[in-house]
Amino acid sequence: MTARRATTSLRVDRSRLLGRIDDLAQIGPLPVEGREGGSSRLALTDADGAGRDLVTSWMRDLGLRVDIDGVGNVVGTWPADRDDPPVLTGSHIDTVATGGRYDGNLGVLAGLEVIETAIEASTRGELELRRPLAVGFFTNEEGSRFAPDMLGSLVYVGGLPLEEALDTVAIDGAVLGDELERIGYVGGMPCPARPPGAFVELHIEQGPVLESEGVTIGAVTGVQGISWQELTITGQSNHAGTTPIELRHDAGYVAAAVAVAVRRLARETPGLVGTVGRIDLHPGLVNVVAARATITVDLRHLDEATLAGAEARIEAEVRELADDEGVEVSWRRLARFDPVTFDPRIVDLVEQVATAHGCSVRRIASGAGHDAQMLARVCPAGMIFTPSVAGISHNPTELTGPDDLEAGANVLLDVVLHLATLPSLPTLPPPNLRGARPESEAEPRKVEEQAHG
Amino acid sequence: MTARRATTSLRVDRSRLLGRIDDLAQIGPLPVEGREGGSSRLALTDADGAGRDLVTSWMRDLGLRVDIDGVGNVVGTWPADRDDPPVLTGSHIDTVATGGRYDGNLGVLAGLEVIETAIEASTRGELELRRPLAVGFFTNEEGSRFAPDMLGSLVYVGGLPLEEALDTVAIDGAVLGDELERIGYVGGMPCPARPPGAFVELHIEQGPVLESEGVTIGAVTGVQGISWQELTITGQSNHAGTTPIELRHDAGYVAAAVAVAVRRLARETPGLVGTVGRIDLHPGLVNVVAARATITVDLRHLDEATLAGAEARIEAEVRELADDEGVEVSWRRLARFDPVTFDPRIVDLVEQVATAHGCSVRRIASGAGHDAQMLARVCPAGMIFTPSVAGISHNPTELTGPDDLEAGANVLLDVVLHLATLPSLPTLPPPNLRGARPESEAEPRKVEEQAHG
Repeated sequence: MTARRATTSLRVDRSRLLGRIDDLAQIGPLPVEGREGGSSRLALTDADGAGRDLVTSWMRDLGLRVDIDGVGNVVGTWPADRDDPPVLTGSHIDTVATGGRYDGNLGVLAGLEVIETAIEASTRGELELRRPLAVGFFTNEEGSRFAPDMLGSLVYVGGLPLEEALDTVAIDGAVLGDELERIGYVGGMPCPARPPGAFVELHIEQGPVLESEGVTIGAVTGVQGISWQELTITGQSNHAGTTPIELRHDAGYVAAAVAVAVRRLARETPGLVGTVGRIDLHPGLVNVVAARATITVDLRHLDEATLAGAEARIEAEVRELADDEGVEVSWRRLARFDPVTFDPRIVDLVEQVATAHGCSVRRIASGAGHDAQMLARVCPAGMIFTPSVAGISHNPTELTGPDDLEAGANVLLDVVLHLATLPSLPTLPPPNLRGARPESEAEPRKVEEQAHG
Repeated sequence: MTARRATTSLRVDRSRLLGRIDDLAQIGPLPVEGREGGSSRLALTDADGAGRDLVTSWMRDLGLRVDIDGVGNVVGTWPADRDDPPVLTGSHIDTVATGGRYDGNLGVLAGLEVIETAIEASTRGELELRRPLAVGFFTNEEGSRFAPDMLGSLVYVGGLPLEEALDTVAIDGAVLGDELERIGYVGGMPCPARPPGAFVELHIEQGPVLESEGVTIGAVTGVQGISWQELTITGQSNHAGTTPIELRHDAGYVAAAVAVAVRRLARETPGLVGTVGRIDLHPGLVNVVAARATITVDLRHLDEATLAGAEARIEAEVRELADDEGVEVSWRRLARFDPVTFDPRIVDLVEQVATAHGCSVRRIASGAGHDAQMLARVCPAGMIFTPSVAGISHNPTELTGPDDLEAGANVLLDVVLHLATLPSLPTLPPPNLRGARPESEAEPRKVEEQAHG
């Protein structure tokens, strides 16, 4: 796989891609004054149904074979009569309640654009592929309406039984299977699906790294493992004026000290991110030493051993702080996902193609969850990131510039075409088996509404 | 003033004192299963009126002259025909919404008991006093219904114009003057009042120091100065997974770091107490870097220069933390009271009497506000503390053991009698002029409901 072999002279049609992104954004529109707006298409609502109808109509217009599985995942394959494992690309078109227009949609519509470009080149006799191409969108990636997030791709790879998925109850009380039927997206394609030959997903970064470094393309090395814990610290309520410091059992102080310890650990551990996003003190009054504090600790790292080590360090620090202050701490695990490593050959390929295209590129770990991490369980998989202005996503003001959108789609094009012309695809390397999604003890649904993963 | 000269062989009647405490607690009763309960008598409510009626009836039964001023402060003087400056004792009988039975009430009823004991001794020809004795209770000390707290004693010493006090609107919308009239406690005694010769207040500690050290009597050296500030920290909301630590503007981290800095400063500064009792993060989600944090900082010290220095230290630390993290901080002063120093001769006297009575005694600063700090502006003043079990107050389970109550009342007895027999009372030392109560920019009324000062 050299850059020379990996690239073609083909390029996507920029205005067609931007036009489809804009058309899809008009379904469930969330206008933003003075600029492009976002969308609200919670999974399996009427708006999601209308979005699905639009995208599948585009697939059919291009002559793709549209397959729908039992959980509503949709895959369009070209040529329509090919049944051997395709090079699959895609993402999702559901959004959070106040979503942007690029999160997920870009990957699906760029995938469609890649196939349309390939069809045109093939019609001109300029392209011959060994493997079919396919573009898909997976049900309920955001997890804002149904838990867990990435539900569709999880079922697709056999990580969650179909029946269980169909019984999932939404935050609004609706049942997933009923909603699927209502919007007409119960299909006959078996699930779990037959694994594709490879999977590549183009997605916006949803973070500030690429933009802040002026880099156009992220070659995504994997998805960080996630550890979410909730600590409840129980001390003793006391008068802030009359209780000497050494006689206090101040739950609020311990909560603050844990948050500071999390930050210190993140500073000291390369690649670790750590966040205390919630601190609730009780009674929460200026002159009362807090009797109780509840905080959350979010730790993420690309390496499982480092993540587990960070958890252990925080646990030890909390124990010491609690002993010193004379407070009790109870722990509740909100979520724990192992890191996922993408196929290194696909990471290399993305880097090579981007370089050959004259794009700046860097390796980057994904801090958020994506469908590609599910696909990585069953086939060689990878991701391409494009910059997010100010790192903003899950917001109608989410923005990726048109040049970056075009550059990302062109990198996707050559990565997909290269994989589709290789004499043989890489086989799944053992590390991906680690991508199994462990049970979370309690699904943090409320949080998922805001920003999945 | 030696211990020998300061003590008499007189002692209060323990069962009479405990009986009156219990009788008063039955007005607005808050039962506690298996033990003594507390009371709810918010200032100038019907319950407070009934409590006042009971205490003034006891005063009249003893033959005291009962004077009531324009803001409802009540003073009972013996002998009734004496008009020269008395040695005044007393406290308050209003409570917080969920009050105990000792806070304030002890000082008033022990004062009554001191006078009854003196009357009996005088009747037996065993006592001759140079000065009259008086016991008073001041309106709205708690500040739970009307702001500010210690309102009655503030008016009494001329720190707040009567008209302004009468116009005060309660948290329930009632006007103070109307409520006073309604319960029949508008009196003709002029206010500000003519200063008494001296003022001594017996009060429960409301903190854990005496109990934890096994000490019976606190000789109160003064009241800590109070600094309450509210900080609003504005950073930037970001995805906890995709935003590297070095690109964050995490308001939650800065809030936590300030709380830790407050604790460190309190540890390093003898006598300083520092508390962050409230931390609110927005949006307050596990996987979102907080965009905004609001915290309160409560600092207290007995020395004004030390308190001001602590404020400056915290301000500098906050500035540095904010600069490092790239967040904005706005400050709002919630309250600022200068420290009050009690008359050192009265502090000495309390110590000498307690020692002569065989009681363990220690000097202690009050962390909470008390009427005595207002009286300290116009006459030599001091306070005596008795232990609070577990430091609990402003709660129906508030408890001071009967032996401690009796010991405290007996120390008060001999301190008052000594002051009433001195050839001349000390004149007001200059430092007490520092006890002026500055304006607070915003009265933290909600907090006062829980724990004044």
